Amino acid sequence: MNNYFSIQDIDSLSDWLKEAIEIKKKPLANKTLGKNKTIGLLFFNPSLRTRLSTHKAALNLGMHVIVMNFTGEGWSLEYEDGTIMDQGNSEHVKEAAQVVSQYCDVLAIRAFAKLKNREEDYREEVLNGFIKYASIPIINMESATGHPLQALTDAITITEYKKTNKPKVVLSWAPHPKALPQAVANSFVEMMQKMDANFVITHPKGFELDNKITKQVPIDYNQENALKDADFVYVKNWSSYVDYGKVVSNDFSWMMTKKKMELTNNGKFMHCLPVRRNVVVEDKVIDSENSIVIEQANNRTFAVQLVLKKILEKLQK
Amino acid sequence: MNNYFSIQDIDSLSDWLKEAIEIKKKPLANKTLGKNKTIGLLFFNPSLRTRLSTHKAALNLGMHVIVMNFTGEGWSLEYEDGTIMDQGNSEHVKEAAQVVSQYCDVLAIRAFAKLKNREEDYREEVLNGFIKYASIPIINMESATGHPLQALTDAITITEYKKTNKPKVVLSWAPHPKALPQAVANSFVEMMQKMDANFVITHPKGFELDNKITKQVPIDYNQENALKDADFVYVKNWSSYVDYGKVVSNDFSWMMTKKKMELTNNGKFMHCLPVRRNVVVEDKVIDSENSIVIEQANNRTFAVQLVLKKILEKLQK
Amino acid sequence: MNNYFSIQDIDSLSDWLKEAIEIKKKPLANKTLGKNKTIGLLFFNPSLRTRLSTHKAALNLGMHVIVMNFTGEGWSLEYEDGTIMDQGNSEHVKEAAQVVSQYCDVLAIRAFAKLKNREEDYREEVLNGFIKYASIPIINMESATGHPLQALTDAITITEYKKTNKPKVVLSWAPHPKALPQAVANSFVEMMQKMDANFVITHPKGFELDNKITKQVPIDYNQENALKDADFVYVKNWSSYVDYGKVVSNDFSWMMTKKKMELTNNGKFMHCLPVRRNVVVEDKVIDSENSIVIEQANNRTFAVQLVLKKILEKLQK
Repeated sequence: MNNYFSIQDIDSLSDWLKEAIEIKKKPLANKTLGKNKTIGLLFFNPSLRTRLSTHKAALNLGMHVIVMNFTGEGWSLEYEDGTIMDQGNSEHVKEAAQVVSQYCDVLAIRAFAKLKNREEDYREEVLNGFIKYASIPIINMESATGHPLQALTDAITITEYKKTNKPKVVLSWAPHPKALPQAVANSFVEMMQKMDANFVITHPKGFELDNKITKQVPIDYNQENALKDADFVYVKNWSSYVDYGKVVSNDFSWMMTKKKMELTNNGKFMHCLPVRRNVVVEDKVIDSENSIVIEQANNRTFAVQLVLKKILEKLQK
Repeated sequence: MNNYFSIQDIDSLSDWLKEAIEIKKKPLANKTLGKNKTIGLLFFNPSLRTRLSTHKAALNLGMHVIVMNFTGEGWSLEYEDGTIMDQGNSEHVKEAAQVVSQYCDVLAIRAFAKLKNREEDYREEVLNGFIKYASIPIINMESATGHPLQALTDAITITEYKKTNKPKVVLSWAPHPKALPQAVANSFVEMMQKMDANFVITHPKGFELDNKITKQVPIDYNQENALKDADFVYVKNWSSYVDYGKVVSNDFSWMMTKKKMELTNNGKFMHCLPVRRNVVVEDKVIDSENSIVIEQANNRTFAVQLVLKKILEKLQK
Repeated sequence: MNNYFSIQDIDSLSDWLKEAIEIKKKPLANKTLGKNKTIGLLFFNPSLRTRLSTHKAALNLGMHVIVMNFTGEGWSLEYEDGTIMDQGNSEHVKEAAQVVSQYCDVLAIRAFAKLKNREEDYREEVLNGFIKYASIPIINMESATGHPLQALTDAITITEYKKTNKPKVVLSWAPHPKALPQAVANSFVEMMQKMDANFVITHPKGFELDNKITKQVPIDYNQENALKDADFVYVKNWSSYVDYGKVVSNDFSWMMTKKKMELTNNGKFMHCLPVRRNVVVEDKVIDSENSIVIEQANNRTFAVQLVLKKILEKLQK
């Protein structure tokens, strides 16, 4: 693995999941692996879990961490080739990526979708720009269209909590006051197709994700029907892919409630966080014993630590 | 001690002061105590002294430090229970505190008063929210109503400079162009009641602090009278507690001057900094030999290092 | 050397250049020199290369690094003596510099020109304020009128690439949509007068730099003439010194092009970055084999590491 751009960079998911759970048992077992190695964390957008868990994982491996916020501390970059750069962007990613590669050993980057132009977002110009020009490994800390560290976390969490070999997992769309990217949903959908799971997506009409990602995954527009006998209920809002970036409906009847959870097979409630209580999910659900969102967030550290460990091992060769 | 929320968390002030002065003599004596431990510094407001001194103290104890600015890098949190979170706040402190507890071993938090609503500020929802939901120790780096690291610093400084067992200490209100919180004054008043001191507060009418904090401390509305024979003059602005958050008067005759200092017993001038020169205090006072503000700021490191040391020692048990 | 404020603080340039190239070969050779020492990086303006390379160099020397952004995390400082501080500035540099000196062992500061008032900028009140009041060494990470770490980098780069003892070096002004400071140009001009080089400056009329800095350096208003037989072409925009801070002309015919580079002696293209492509320089030039901007940026680490090493060695005495 050179980069961790998407979950397609995972060669053997079952091996990765085993190793992540080993790391969780002994997080300091590889304290010298990252000695004298520096990871640069580049944030083009706000972050809490990803920022702290990545920092912590790097420290667990003995690495140095340099954090750089482009909002406020830096400037905006140009990604197009051949542009006459007489507008707002002060530097081309060609230079930025090559230069930063000389100060760090690994880079991790967060750059959200702008939700203005679908083609532009799905082109992934920030991550792909850095991957193209950097000379060091790149880790995706949530890009325009994917959040593969979250999806790896989710796979670890489902593996820990599942009671059957092939659990039923439901991704259930939720209402939200703001237009959010499809990144978390996309990576989760990809991951569920890699795992041994009976996977269903449920959302109102108009919220269909990119069918190059959902492929053959069944979509049920009837939420209650979809939830029946679910072992895991993963709730998440996203804005429309078809009518790109729009909140085409904000039907609050799609909020996850205790009553709906009763349709499941004593299902576990999952969410990537941050979550808006009593909009996305009722207090009674997230505060119940079946909510595993805190442990899920805990696994963020071990997901990214596994990715970093694999990158460091390859660098040592 | 589980948390350092207020100076009520100090079990034996005299022991603490002795230990702080020992730490100051040999700041690196406990360099391995914090090994593999991480402190998260969460800032909801700007900081200079607190930020740097806390970072430095943690390094002196061998800890890792992760700094997180919620302004700019993060988002705003919800603190009320049962809210329908369809407005500006993206995450509830319930999740934030539990999650962050999994990435760090100790948390230190700065969250100023908003000065809009007295009940809300004095409820200390940010600090109390984190204390309620976090599973790790919390340190107050200045909250809505208290600044106990500053008060501990002040106690160390007075201990170092006092020439008698029971010095006369005067807290003297000062004018200021902006409305400032009562936090520093409150914690100082609490601390002076714990120390062996002849303590007086002087301010214009309308600036009375919360009488649950001032209790029996004498208040003298005549500044010159209060200053007579003072060994320490602690100058600080605060906005009104009664007419909450208002600058009910900005009487520049309350500025500390050389002439007024002549009324004291060759008194030392103290201020927590930052200070507005020639508004709060005349140049001639802060630049005089009797000004101990720089040494006072130096003691910030040893105050917070003592708190951290006590927390780490308890974590080791 | 107490501070690295300008290139006048370099005692023997030839020795420094030799040592920098040694550091580049073995960047971790002095990994214990900075043990238990902390550098504070104070940013009053955005930074990418300087921020990361200084952080990295400090880590290479085993130092701790504390980063402080005054925009957002801190507040604005007062630099004038005797001011009545009832306006926007919350703290005087007298206190800030003395206090920060107590938490760090070395300070590095970035504070750009405001380009409003020439006398004010050339007085260098931020850097000089800190140098006056701090009790620890200060490093200039680009001030109002100079960027001596960049100039040292440039000298290292020219030394590595030069094919003759006295290469021809041309500083060529470039157009830019925004008014930029003279800092990089000033320090480069000073450095070229210290090096053994045949140095020429070329720019449109009205962009003359301070003649106390350019002294006897020839200025050629004919760019093509100046470029003839150049071994190194250093391209940079700056706003007017005479009509201070103004973009008195934005003649895009001054952009560096492939056709112009053909006039040189197979000259190397240099720029401090960030650079606006197809405004300052044509893609064909910066993407050519003769462009050494990436290696130039790489040398930023070794320039600042040399400065830090010299400061640490002096602190140890």
